[in-house]
Order: sequence, then C-alpha cells, then structure tokens
Amino acid sequence: MAVQPTPADKFTFGLWTVGWQARDPFGDATREPIDPVETVHQLAQRGAYGVTFHDDDLVPFGSADDERTRIIEGFKKALAETGLKAPMVTTNLFTHPVFKDGGLTSNDREIRRYALRKVMRNMELAHELGAETYVLWGGREGSETDAAKDVQAALERYREGLDTLAAYVKDQGLGLRLALEPKPNEPRGDILLPTVGHALGFIATLEHGDIVGLNPEVGHEQMSNLNFVHGIAQALYQDKLFHIDLNGQHGPKFDQDLVFGHGDLISAFFLVDLLENGSPNGGNRYDGPRHFDYKPLRTEDLSGVWRSAEANMTTYLLLKERAVKFRQDPEVQEALKASKVYELGQSTLADGETWKELLADKSAFEEFDADAKAKAGYGFVHLDELAVEHLMGAR
Amino acid sequence: MAVQPTPADKFTFGLWTVGWQARDPFGDATREPIDPVETVHQLAQRGAYGVTFHDDDLVPFGSADDERTRIIEGFKKALAETGLKAPMVTTNLFTHPVFKDGGLTSNDREIRRYALRKVMRNMELAHELGAETYVLWGGREGSETDAAKDVQAALERYREGLDTLAAYVKDQGLGLRLALEPKPNEPRGDILLPTVGHALGFIATLEHGDIVGLNPEVGHEQMSNLNFVHGIAQALYQDKLFHIDLNGQHGPKFDQDLVFGHGDLISAFFLVDLLENGSPNGGNRYDGPRHFDYKPLRTEDLSGVWRSAEANMTTYLLLKERAVKFRQDPEVQEALKASKVYELGQSTLADGETWKELLADKSAFEEFDADAKAKAGYGFVHLDELAVEHLMGAR
Amino acid sequence: MAVQPTPADKFTFGLWTVGWQARDPFGDATREPIDPVETVHQLAQRGAYGVTFHDDDLVPFGSADDERTRIIEGFKKALAETGLKAPMVTTNLFTHPVFKDGGLTSNDREIRRYALRKVMRNMELAHELGAETYVLWGGREGSETDAAKDVQAALERYREGLDTLAAYVKDQGLGLRLALEPKPNEPRGDILLPTVGHALGFIATLEHGDIVGLNPEVGHEQMSNLNFVHGIAQALYQDKLFHIDLNGQHGPKFDQDLVFGHGDLISAFFLVDLLENGSPNGGNRYDGPRHFDYKPLRTEDLSGVWRSAEANMTTYLLLKERAVKFRQDPEVQEALKASKVYELGQSTLADGETWKELLADKSAFEEFDADAKAKAGYGFVHLDELAVEHLMGAR
Amino acid sequence: MAVQPTPADKFTFGLWTVGWQARDPFGDATREPIDPVETVHQLAQRGAYGVTFHDDDLVPFGSADDERTRIIEGFKKALAETGLKAPMVTTNLFTHPVFKDGGLTSNDREIRRYALRKVMRNMELAHELGAETYVLWGGREGSETDAAKDVQAALERYREGLDTLAAYVKDQGLGLRLALEPKPNEPRGDILLPTVGHALGFIATLEHGDIVGLNPEVGHEQMSNLNFVHGIAQALYQDKLFHIDLNGQHGPKFDQDLVFGHGDLISAFFLVDLLENGSPNGGNRYDGPRHFDYKPLRTEDLSGVWRSAEANMTTYLLLKERAVKFRQDPEVQEALKASKVYELGQSTLADGETWKELLADKSAFEEFDADAKAKAGYGFVHLDELAVEHLMGAR
Repeated sequence: MAVQPTPADKFTFGLWTVGWQARDPFGDATREPIDPVETVHQLAQRGAYGVTFHDDDLVPFGSADDERTRIIEGFKKALAETGLKAPMVTTNLFTHPVFKDGGLTSNDREIRRYALRKVMRNMELAHELGAETYVLWGGREGSETDAAKDVQAALERYREGLDTLAAYVKDQGLGLRLALEPKPNEPRGDILLPTVGHALGFIATLEHGDIVGLNPEVGHEQMSNLNFVHGIAQALYQDKLFHIDLNGQHGPKFDQDLVFGHGDLISAFFLVDLLENGSPNGGNRYDGPRHFDYKPLRTEDLSGVWRSAEANMTTYLLLKERAVKFRQDPEVQEALKASKVYELGQSTLADGETWKELLADKSAFEEFDADAKAKAGYGFVHLDELAVEHLMGAR
Repeated sequence: MAVQPTPADKFTFGLWTVGWQARDPFGDATREPIDPVETVHQLAQRGAYGVTFHDDDLVPFGSADDERTRIIEGFKKALAETGLKAPMVTTNLFTHPVFKDGGLTSNDREIRRYALRKVMRNMELAHELGAETYVLWGGREGSETDAAKDVQAALERYREGLDTLAAYVKDQGLGLRLALEPKPNEPRGDILLPTVGHALGFIATLEHGDIVGLNPEVGHEQMSNLNFVHGIAQALYQDKLFHIDLNGQHGPKFDQDLVFGHGDLISAFFLVDLLENGSPNGGNRYDGPRHFDYKPLRTEDLSGVWRSAEANMTTYLLLKERAVKFRQDPEVQEALKASKVYELGQSTLADGETWKELLADKSAFEEFDADAKAKAGYGFVHLDELAVEHLMGAR
Repeated sequence: MAVQPTPADKFTFGLWTVGWQARDPFGDATREPIDPVETVHQLAQRGAYGVTFHDDDLVPFGSADDERTRIIEGFKKALAETGLKAPMVTTNLFTHPVFKDGGLTSNDREIRRYALRKVMRNMELAHELGAETYVLWGGREGSETDAAKDVQAALERYREGLDTLAAYVKDQGLGLRLALEPKPNEPRGDILLPTVGHALGFIATLEHGDIVGLNPEVGHEQMSNLNFVHGIAQALYQDKLFHIDLNGQHGPKFDQDLVFGHGDLISAFFLVDLLENGSPNGGNRYDGPRHFDYKPLRTEDLSGVWRSAEANMTTYLLLKERAVKFRQDPEVQEALKASKVYELGQSTLADGETWKELLADKSAFEEFDADAKAKAGYGFVHLDELAVEHLMGAR
Repeated sequence: MAVQPTPADKFTFGLWTVGWQARDPFGDATREPIDPVETVHQLAQRGAYGVTFHDDDLVPFGSADDERTRIIEGFKKALAETGLKAPMVTTNLFTHPVFKDGGLTSNDREIRRYALRKVMRNMELAHELGAETYVLWGGREGSETDAAKDVQAALERYREGLDTLAAYVKDQGLGLRLALEPKPNEPRGDILLPTVGHALGFIATLEHGDIVGLNPEVGHEQMSNLNFVHGIAQALYQDKLFHIDLNGQHGPKFDQDLVFGHGDLISAFFLVDLLENGSPNGGNRYDGPRHFDYKPLRTEDLSGVWRSAEANMTTYLLLKERAVKFRQDPEVQEALKASKVYELGQSTLADGETWKELLADKSAFEEFDADAKAKAGYGFVHLDELAVEHLMGAR
C-alpha cells in the first residue's frame, strides 16, 4: 500500500482492543492475553501515536499496591522507549459484578460512592501519564425494566457524580477534560444517555459542563441506525467533540466493534471528510486523536490481531486521500455550489435584520411564488455520485 | 367500558389525525376529507378536551384572504359551541414541494425566509385562539446524502430561525412556548435533531431557549428503538416537556402512527405511570394535554375513524387505572424499596460533603468489599412481573 | 395469583436458562453454577413439565467417560424422582474456540466432521432419556465478512450434515425429530438461516426433510423486527413447528432473552392465542412443550432466578386465560365476522372452478365496481381494541 | 468515466422508477409525469437493455379498451424503434383503495377474484411483449394487527392464487416464470412472506412451484437488517433467483429506494461479485437482467432523474470492474486459500462415506484435539481488508 501510518496521523488504540481475548456471550476466549508492554511496542512499530486504557486493562482488578506500582512503572518505561503517548484514559465500571446495576447511577448508594473513588484513583494516574481526556462510558447505567430505575433520580445522581469528578479535576489541576461515551444498549437493556444527543442535552445541566464533552463511537450511534456524521457535526457545532471512537458496525444489532470502515463505508468516507476537511462553510474542527475502539474478529489468531490493527489505519488513510481529492475536485466544487451547499452558510436574516424587517419584506411572503420556486432541482444525486466515485478511486 | 373520557382528562387530537385520508406511498386515498367543523363536534361528543392543527389543515394552502377569514370564523364558532380548546397549533413546512429540502434549514435562503414568515403568520392565529404551545416538526430538515447538507451550517440556520421566532413571540406577547418535535427519518433519509436528546442538546445553544422545549412522539423515538419512557424522563428532568404526542409503533420501520398502546403496550403502561404518578422520587411533572398524533388505519371507513379516536382515549384511561393501582399496591411499594429504587433518591455525597471528604472516607474504597457487595440481588424481575400483572388487570 | 402451573401445561426450561451465570460481553459472572440435579428439583416443585439441555450443560466439555456416566446417572435419578421429562435435547457447537467459524459449516473440514460426531454422541443420550425433539441452533454458522464464507457451499455442507444426522436418527431408530433454530446474528455478524423463513426454505432441499422442522424463538425473529406470530403461523401452515422457544425481546438489539411477555406483550398475547386456540379458520395446531429459553437478569441473585422462572409460567397462563376469553366473547366473534376474518377461510375459486371459469366470470372483472367495493371499512381497529382490552383484563 | 453501459450489461429500469412523481407520505408531487414512450427513448440513449412496468404504469387504471390499445401500440412502437426489451412485467395490486386489505389474500373473496383477473389480463400483455418474468409484489398482503388476519388461511389463499396463475401460464403457454418479491413491511404494518427466506419456504408448498421463484430487492431485505448477499446466495442455491431488484437503503427505516450502491456499498460490492463472478466454489449463477428498482430523490428535477438513472449503471459497472480484479488478484486467491474458503467446497463425508464410517473414524472424534485445532486463525480480517481496498480502487 502507498499509505503508511505515522505518529503525525494521531492514531491511537485501546489496550482492550487488540488485547481482547474474544470471549463473547456464547463462547470462550480464543486468544491468550497480551502484556500491555508488548502492545505498546507492537503499536509503536506500526506507526501509532498512542495507547489508551481502562484502569483494569493495565492493572488487574484487586491487585496489591506494590504490584500496581510495578506494572505502572513497566508501562511508563515502554511508553518512554517508544515515544507512544497515553492521551486518553478511562475507568472500568462494568466488568465486576458489583457494578451490575451501574456505577454512578446504581440504585445502591455505597456502590455509587465506590465508583466515584475508582474513577478518582485512575484520574490521578491519567494525569501522571499526561492524558488530556478522561472518558466515561456508563455501560451499566441503565435498566431492563422501567419499573427498576427512576430515570429522573438517576440523571440527578449522574449529574452529581460528574460534577464531583469535574470539581476534583479542576481543584487538583489534573488538566483533564471529561468525555461521555453514549451507547443505546448492551450490556443493559437500555442505557442512560443513549445517543450523542442525549449526552449533549444532559451536559447542559452540569455545573462544570465547560470541561465535559463527548467521546462518540461510530458503532454506538449506528446501533440506533442514526447518522453518525450528523451526530459528529452536532457535537462539533456545540464544541463538545473531545474525543472519538472509530470502528465499524452493520446497523441495529449487537455491538460489533468491527475494523473502521468495514461497516458503512460511505458514512466512514463522509466522517473522514468532516474530520480532515471540516464542514464546507467552516465551523468547529476536531484535532484530537483518531482512536480505534474495535475488536479483532474472534476467528483471528495473533497475526490477525495485528493485521486488523493495521487495517484500521490503512482504511482511514485511504479514505483521507480520497476525501481530500474529493473536496479539491473543481467538478465537486461546482456541484456543491449548484446544490446551494454554500448558500446554507449565509444567514437567513440580513445583517441587522430582525423579525420586524422580515415581516415587512413582501418578497419573503406576499410576493413569494412557492410553485415557481419549487420547480428547481437541487442536484443532490449528482453530489452523491461524485462522492461515491471518489471513494472508489474512480476520479 | 367503565372508563369514559371527559375534558378533565385533557385529551386532544390533531385535525390531521382523524382527517387523514389514508394516502400512503403506495396507495391512493381511501377516505373523503372531513370538514374541521365536523371534527370539532365529533371530538367534543366523545369527551375530548381540545383540537390542534397545522395552518394548512384548517385553511388550504394558497387560499385567498377572505376565504381564510371565513374558514377561521367557522372554526372559532365550532370551538365556542362545543367548549373545545385549541391548546396547540403548528405549521406545515413539509407538504408543498417548495419545502423539498426543508424550511428553516433549506439550502435555499429565500425558502428559509418564506418558511419563517409562514410560521409567523400562523403564530398570530395560534395566539388568537388561545394556544399555549406552538409545535415545530422539522420533517424536511435533513438530507439523503451527507454531501448535500453542511450540518454545522444547518444547525446554525436552525438556531437563527428559532431565535427569530422566539423573539417574535416574546416581543409580540403571543404567550406561546415553542416545542420541537424530533424524528429520526421519514420523509428525509436523515432528519436533523433526530431524537429527544439531540433536540435537548440543541436547545442549550439558543438565546431564547427559555421558551423552547419539546414535543416528543412515542413512535418517533421507537423508530430508533430508543426507550421512550427514558426519553420523557430526561425531558422532564431538564424541564423541557412542553407537550407530548401519543401513538403506537412496532419498532424500526416506517412511521406507523398506530392507536396509543397498540404498539409496545408495556412501554405505554410505564409512560402513563410516569405522566400520571410522576417519578418515584419526585422531580418534574407534566400537566399539559395528552395529545394523540395517530392515523386511523387505511383499511377503515368513517365509523372506524371515530372508533379509533375513542380507542386512544380508552386505552389511556385503562392504563391510568392500572398504573394508579400499581403504585398504591403495598406489595409494589415493598418491592420498590427492596430494589432500592428509593435509595437512588438519596444524594451520593452526604450533605455538605465534597470530593475531599469522599476521598478521605476509607469505607468508600479502601475498606469496601466489592465481592461481598456484589452478591445481593436487586429483585428487578419481581418488580417487572408485578407491573405486567397490574397492566393485565390480574392484581 | 389464581394461575398455578402444572405439568399438564407442558412448561419446560433449559438447564442453561436458570443456570446462566450471567457472564456477558462486558461483565463477569454474578452467580454461582447450579447443579443440574438441583435444577430438576426446583423446576418440579414449581409445576414444570420438563427440562432440556445441551450436552455440555449436563456434562462439562472434555469430561472423562466415567465422570460422564456418573453425571448422567445422577440426572436420570433426579428425573425419575420428580417425574420431570427431558423432551428436547441439543448440542453445544458454539462455546469451545474450535467452533469459532462454525460446526457443520466451518471452513475447516475436520471441524465439520468433529461437529457431526459431537451431535451424534448426544443424540444417543437424547434417545436414552426419551427425548422427542433434537434442536440444532447453528449460532456459529455464519460470517462477519462476505469474503470469508461461500454461502452456496456452506448451505451444501449444512444440507449434507443435516441429512447425515437425519439418516443416523432413522437408521438407528432414535425416534427423534430435528428442529432448526433460526437466528439472524450474534454471536456471528450474520448467521446462516437467519429467520423462520430461511430455515423453511432450506428444509425443502433436504433428502430427509420429513423429520426436520423448526424451533423458532420469540426474540430471534424480533431481533429482525419480524412479526413472530406471522412466522409461527407460516411454520404451522407448512407443518414444521416441531418445538418453540418462548422469551422476551425489545426489538433489534442484542439477544435479550427476557422473561416471556416482558418484551412485546401484545405479540405474546396473539402468540398464546394461536398456540392455545389455533387459527380462526382451523389449520395445523401445536401441542408440544412450551419451552422457555430465557436468561434471568444479571442483576438477580438465586431467589430472583427462581422467581423469574415462575414469572414465565405465570405470564403465559394469564395470557392463556385472557386469550380463551377473547375468543369466546360474542362481541369478538361478531367483530371477526364483520372484519371478514372467516371469509378468508373460503377458497377463492369455487368448488371445481379453474382459471377458465374464473376468466369467463364477468362479475369478477368486467362488471366488478372497484370504486364501490373500496368504500367498505374492515373494522380492524375495533378488533385490535377488543384484543387489547381483553389482554388488560378489562372485559 | 471510463465505464459506459451497453445493452450487453442487461440493465433494466421500471417505468415507475424514473417516472416517480415524488409524492411521499408527507408531501405532494414535485415532478410532472413522464410519458412511457419518452422513458423508453431516454433509457435507450443511456445504454439500457430494457424497461419494465406495472399494468397501471403504462395504462392508467380504468382506461377504456381503445385507449388501452392505443397506449400499448405506442409503447410497442417505441420498443421497436429503440431495440429496448420488456423482459419483466408486473401488476399493481396496491394503489387502488379496493386493495387496502390486499389482493390475493384480501379478507374479501370478491377482491381476491378481481385481483387474479387483473393479473391474468396483464400476463397476456407480458407474453405479447416477450417478457420472461412476471413479478408479484404483494405489498398489501398483510396486516397491522394479528387479530385481523388468519395467516394460515391467508397463506392457503396465497397458494391457491399463485397455483391458479401458474396453471394459467402453463396452460396458455405464456412462457413466463413467476417471481415473488418479498418485503417485511410498508405499506402494511407486516407483510406476508416478509423475506427471501419466507418466500422460499412458501414456494415449496406450491403445486406449480417449478415456475415460481424470487425477485429479491436489496432494500427490502436490508429493512430487516438481513445480509442481502447471503439471501441471494440462498436463492441461487435453491435455484430460485429468477430476477433481482437493485437499489440502496440505510438499514431499518422506511423504504428508501436509493440509487444502487448509495446505501451499503460494501454489501453492493459483494453482491456484484456474486452476480458477476459466481460463488468461489461454483454453484448456481444468475444471468438475468440487472433491474434497478429505485426512486430519484424527491429533491431532483428531470435532469436529476436521468442523472440518477445513469448513476445506478455507473456504480454497478465500477463495482464490477473492481470485483473482477479482486477475484483475479493472486494475493486474494492466496488469502482465500489460507482462509479455507475453498475447503468449504469439499464434502464433509468422503466419497461413499455414511454416518457409519464417520462413527468408526476415531480421528474424527476420539483422537480429535479440539484445543490444538482451535489455535489456528482464519485470516478473515485480511480477506475483508483486501476486498475493501479493491473496492476503493487502491489495489
């Protein structure tokens, strides 16, 4: 392949991704665990920029303090040797049975307190390793029956928990931003803050919402058959895209965590276009890590694991190549203009105009010929075909 | 049936619901139009509280001014005669071809201006009729290909449009609150603000967000297989449940608009429980109209139309009866306590406690025995079974 | 509750259902294993008719022969003591990593041969225990990418495998019927024979299709948002409903395996109506076990496990009570007639009529007044409301 | 573009596709009707092979006989002038209100008889025009509530209807094969024979099943989130792929009928690979028309309509180019071998082997080392990446 990843591409991987042992709801593990130190070296060799982890990915749950220290030192050494960064860290509030009804919103108050402390402990480590983003995936915050969860109360506890954590980050100067990761279901029947939108709405209720944003994941939105590119654009518009999880999914079914692009490829193309080229009329941009949160297929051995890691990066870089060419193509520029994509960048009211002037403008209503106006076509199919052809390398 | 609707139940219907002529994407109309005046009388006879409408439901698009006046006067007279209210009014920004790429976010600026004026004109009428809520369903605000719509720009135009309308309402003293109605798709491939969550997030960006809230619809959220009760609880939590559209849907497919309850009945039970009894630990309540936004099946004649209108109210009232009994049942109260549903009402931090005291509390982490804590069961299945049996009138 | 299960109700449970330790893709086990002998006694006490199992549920994979014998004898003794039957047995071809690309359709021929032998060994045991049905759920027969699986070849191997097993059953006089269990996905990205329909189609290609039928599962069809009652009716119509798996599901998402009825309750009502009352115009009936293939929620302890087992039976019996009353209600009978539900039982052609007489019948076409005919309503909403009210115990 | 459609590519279009006036459930028509004669000429100019139609697409419902004759003659003339074929014809049993509860399975017997006659009349025309395939899409055969439709009876009427039509075709020597087109829902809440599988199963019950097969549509299977390529492979395996409808869809939502490829592009690639290259281990092939059943976006004017017609063909041809190169690539061939894709072509039993020899083969079970066997990886991710890169023109 012509494309070759380098740290400048800012590709990052979770320890739990390549390290997934492929235990699923109906099957035992098919692969051995991988030592995090080994993962760091393997990723570095392949041009990755960084590695991310849950507390328990690095240090097994319940490890003694000295064991924890020993593991962390070994990990730091590997980072130093390879130059790999750890730009994002997160907490596991879902594997241990104690979290079976959630962490920050468990019906059990003692568990809520324990969950907060588990996050706080790992935030210190995140700070120590130079992380900028702290992700919170509340995979167990939810319910299977509406009788079991008072959602208004749960959101109030969620708010309390997040504001406590954010205050801790600010007061201690940990330099972290919190990023919520929405998901509609699995493992819970319904998860609180199920989509990018619900999380954006909720953040508006926080005292410390200024340092709380999102970590949207491709597959999680697609599990609800929502348009991921639209979701990312709204997160950008609200200046809340703090981090991103890239992978692949085939619509509403279990969480597949396929290689990026190996699901809805056209959506992946437009996502990379948005991340790399920005919106046509400007607006907010994302420049953080391109984080792959995927799982190597359960059918693969270790060589397949590393190959799949490479496939994520290759697919991204190929899509980037094509997206850049797409935007630079004069025929595309012409078509965008013809489709009035740039006209949407113009404000609807004129400079200084208010509803009063609009109301007085007869051309806007009384003299507006709706039937005549309706005749013009928008040319959207042409735009779509141009995009698909660029994606296929046919232009 | 024992249950009998009265205006105190606050049941309302859209003119476009019973009046739907049953034209669908693959078929011609199976019913004649119904005169709005007739609808008002029919609904009043059946115990409804009010009627709602789009501008074009009442006054056909393009009617001359005097014709418009004549129709409106006739409608007012019918309201006066029957005592029916018109608590909610809305605008049709989707039927005429001019809106084929949207109203407030059309790529075409002139159309955006025209759309604003169309809303403003009808807001005056809404005010005149004593409406409190003005719904905006942006069914055409969206796209079929990501190439065609700059979503950041579209949201900026949406914001501009809504703030202009809200300013108009405030400046003119129209006494209306705006309620956005989310929907994920249909008629557009993807619609902007696809869920309750996305709309809540977006409202936080508005200058006049204080008078902008939501009008969620059962089927619209269920088209994304999202938990509607959770969505309503979040809207309540954020104090944005301004209005509600009740109907039925069988999961992710075309928008069915079935009779309320004739889709996911258990979810309908918990919805009525939330609307009528509130959340177990208190929180915000809804006391607005119970608005049915449904379509009588295309197979029905006029007698089926009116019967289906009754079925919405009957089902709601039966669910209400059962939900009230459910909450009052001492065994249910005991089970809610056993499941710690009320414990979620307690704040996670003690009064005055901050992260500092939490960090110092060894019982919260250092001495917390996760394995021991994990052993207790939550009893959620018992709660669910109690609910299902109450719903079935078996307790 | 008035309803009380007895063996005459023919309720059966899989060892793997109540015995599920609640390990899920994101969490460790929350419950201890249960000895199968204990399960037999617990189910018998609660009025169940029988118990079912995969080979590895009863005898752990890789057990030595004498250990296997010891376990089987203990299990038989428990059955004898309690009178519980073992009417259905199945094979686990999915947990062990060797089956990661499937059993009967694995790309690896040696694994296909091993899979056949694993089934054959357990079929002998099934026969010995008096089972009548042998279920085959091919959960690993499938793929994540279309490049990896030649589906025509896979179906040919599936056919070969099933015909070999069926020949073995016939030749050895094992007295078993084979029942395929369709599922669209999970654990594989796409599973072969994804729905009731695909399995029905495939069975038509078998040499020994006479002893091969279906074991449809509520949740599996609902994961594709298909109408389960329609699927069961087609299986009955084709005389292929050999067994049934009852549980609950909330639409297209991961396989939830909720308590029966705790998903789409209206569909559960119509299913029980079909199973207990048969189709309105007659046709084939089902009289086999009512088998619950569900998972007690991961939040529950052992008492919740047994309570959830009871909830399955209670919900079924309540639905049965209501379905019987629904069909006996004279108003319902009247409505069925008005909706022409019985007219669908009349053949379209008259006795002895062929296309020739139909072509000569001018009343059928030349003189048929489509517009006049189209005016009549079908009264389906009324029927639906009657059903919902009966389901709610309101009639 | 390098690719240029010619009649040899066998591309066909329905009159109702380019001719769709863009009336949808929430909007009025945005385009004028197109004269079928004009469509024939436009398609011919663009390299199409043929045109298809419903009776009412060509001759408006209720036209007098002489008007019908006039229209048909004009259409034949256009075909003769352009050389365009009419290889498939179908009947409209869904638009007129008389079919609101279905045609062949309407609860009303007179309507069932009328529906048969409407099909028979158009079959004569199909024969006259040289069509080989007669499609039956039963879009109104279904229900919104299970109370309203006795599905066993409905399937019996469906069977009766199809066998009557098939007998007519045979007896009259019309030279047609019947192709059922499955769809899960829309316009009915649930449609009978909802998937490729259900239709395959049903066909096995027909007396004249030898001339009844399938016309699967990309979007219809994807509305249930089923794998279309798997479905087509099963239809081929059962030798029932009589015709195919190509278009695009974004998962479970309303029927989008997008341009082919403008939905799930990877699935489209594997579909074209299967249609053009056949299955890796041989098996049945399809050589009929590549029929586009899509709708030009409602936002487009006439120039967009014709451009979208071209886009279907271009996308197909580009995918074909890439699929041919994919299969010829030695690295792909190597990877297919490494993944044992060809090993699935070998029968599981040896030549002449039965279950007896298999049972006697200790290497198959007693000496089989499952743990050792499980270690090997299948290399499926590598295959997938090779496919994606070929699709993107990057190899």
